[in-house]
Amino acid sequence: MFYAVIPAGGSGTRLWPLSRAGHPKFLHTLTGTSASLLQATVDRLGALADPASTYVVTGVAHVASVARQLPTLPDANILVEPSPRDSCAAIGLAAAIISLREPSALMGSFAADHLVRDTDAFVEAVRAAMGGAEAGLLMTVGITPTHPETGYGYLRCGDAVGDGPVSRVAEFTEKPPYDVAVSYVESGRYFWNASMFIWRVDVFLGELSRQQPELYAGLMRIAQAWDGPERERVLGEVWCTLPKISVDYAVMEGAAAAGLVGTVPGDFGWNDVGDFNTLGDILERDERGNVVIEAGDGPVSKPQVELLDSERTVVVPRSGRLVSAVGVHDLIIVDTPDALLVCPRNRAQDVKKLVDGLKERGTSYI
Amino acid sequence: MFYAVIPAGGSGTRLWPLSRAGHPKFLHTLTGTSASLLQATVDRLGALADPASTYVVTGVAHVASVARQLPTLPDANILVEPSPRDSCAAIGLAAAIISLREPSALMGSFAADHLVRDTDAFVEAVRAAMGGAEAGLLMTVGITPTHPETGYGYLRCGDAVGDGPVSRVAEFTEKPPYDVAVSYVESGRYFWNASMFIWRVDVFLGELSRQQPELYAGLMRIAQAWDGPERERVLGEVWCTLPKISVDYAVMEGAAAAGLVGTVPGDFGWNDVGDFNTLGDILERDERGNVVIEAGDGPVSKPQVELLDSERTVVVPRSGRLVSAVGVHDLIIVDTPDALLVCPRNRAQDVKKLVDGLKERGTSYI
Repeated sequence: MFYAVIPAGGSGTRLWPLSRAGHPKFLHTLTGTSASLLQATVDRLGALADPASTYVVTGVAHVASVARQLPTLPDANILVEPSPRDSCAAIGLAAAIISLREPSALMGSFAADHLVRDTDAFVEAVRAAMGGAEAGLLMTVGITPTHPETGYGYLRCGDAVGDGPVSRVAEFTEKPPYDVAVSYVESGRYFWNASMFIWRVDVFLGELSRQQPELYAGLMRIAQAWDGPERERVLGEVWCTLPKISVDYAVMEGAAAAGLVGTVPGDFGWNDVGDFNTLGDILERDERGNVVIEAGDGPVSKPQVELLDSERTVVVPRSGRLVSAVGVHDLIIVDTPDALLVCPRNRAQDVKKLVDGLKERGTSYI
Repeated sequence: MFYAVIPAGGSGTRLWPLSRAGHPKFLHTLTGTSASLLQATVDRLGALADPASTYVVTGVAHVASVARQLPTLPDANILVEPSPRDSCAAIGLAAAIISLREPSALMGSFAADHLVRDTDAFVEAVRAAMGGAEAGLLMTVGITPTHPETGYGYLRCGDAVGDGPVSRVAEFTEKPPYDVAVSYVESGRYFWNASMFIWRVDVFLGELSRQQPELYAGLMRIAQAWDGPERERVLGEVWCTLPKISVDYAVMEGAAAAGLVGTVPGDFGWNDVGDFNTLGDILERDERGNVVIEAGDGPVSKPQVELLDSERTVVVPRSGRLVSAVGVHDLIIVDTPDALLVCPRNRAQDVKKLVDGLKERGTSYI
């Protein structure tokens, strides 16, 4: 039995104004299909885990949307975080609950808002990782880097483990500076960390207990109360005291140093769909390189986009209004009912700065 | 007594999507004040003509808006064209009606949608032109060209008339090619035609009768029926048969050739407010050269525009939504309730092409 866990958090700030705190990235259809990123993630995992062993961990603001987007998932498999405590608490909660049902279960954690082009290759990579996990490693999936991205984590590969595709990970490095990222890519020894983790829950909880005893103890207290009448009281008391830390920093870095982390290569068209420029790169474009990202919920009754003499422009028409442009190139235009964004594609990362400014001033647009 | 006539027609296509067929340029507040271009035109003429001798000629689609924007104008002074027959019919209708009230009245015609910065200098120039008109010339106002604009008409100056500022106009030239416009500007002998005409109605109607006898006859038939019970019948029968021609081509070119046209220089900050790039040039900008054109109908309750690292950008926020941009420069962003336009400032003229395309396909956005 394999358990699939999907932490569905994060607001996708660089995808503002489409992605909002109240309707974050994972709930959106962004990739030219009718499925949201979350729905596509669950669908993709269907070959590995049935709905009864698929869990989503999400926040109070999004649980209703998640429940409606995933009608086949049992209610009990939607785990609600009372407040955001970062990824180690979210993934650890699922691991603790699963461990009480099946102590040495195999579990995988997969981000709710990433894109995978080739599902078969994805399933094959995860199955290979399951082999390493059975053998006691905390497994990751490594993506061959195509450019010196500074927004990702990197895995430095060590020796092969056995005859299969599994290698040990010698080092975890989060978000390196640009020149360091360049040297990583040139060395050929680094992978991008795709934020996928496959492990036996007993191995993971053992490492959590060793490296983060307080977090471990809190999560086990909550898990033990989960199926009883005290769940809400215990969750309310304990959750807000849990250390707020990512699973990479809390467990994976230390586990890698202890030689307990492995990886398999993943060549399945992975993308973290981090910003609108990336969407322009990965989605289907017209003959002039323009990409229009429709809502994906059925055919649109009237033409919504009118581009004259325009090239390589990413348009997200989501207000029902006409979006028109004349003579623009390499631009991002995102049109939503209450806010519009215009930004050159090479400044797509800086949308975060704009949103930070709006947040600081307490506006209603975030 | 001076009669001021304001032909209020034309849809201002290059100012789409702000300016629409149903709500054209002259009805808009565009120049940073609370007055529409039409209201500002009437206000400016207040020193020359009282409301009882001020006429607006407009189409059936806009008469209600005109009447509401100009509450001090007598109902009878809003002349309604049953259909668009170009400027000679519009201006000629007013001249014919005025001539029946006061046969040798002085009349001036002034576009409803131009900007004049210095009202005192404007009034002074018109008064100077009135002198030439009294003496029997069809007077124009010449603007010293600042660049080789190909969208304007040009006046070639001839000899001075008397000791004042009046010169004879040797030639009228509509919209010259670029290289011709360059030579005009370099010669120093050409003015832009500001589309202002000052004349005695008897002189104008005499030239109209000589050059356009059919148009003259039709207009006089309509004018004679104007104040009686047959106005609507005669207007309905005759108006649609009138030649569709501009006053420049119909009368002024021929009159200039006959030595009957004069001009006075006008140095009063004239602008035809033809497109959004022009608005960016003439309106007040912030320290980074950005221009935000608010609706002008009172203070806005929340910040509507958020420009980060952006320069020389013209934003027209008219939908109530937040308009945000990151890292853009020299761009036009026009945001209206049902349509958005994004266009580099140096492509502002090509907005017309976009609108032509929308019109051809019968969309509802024009």
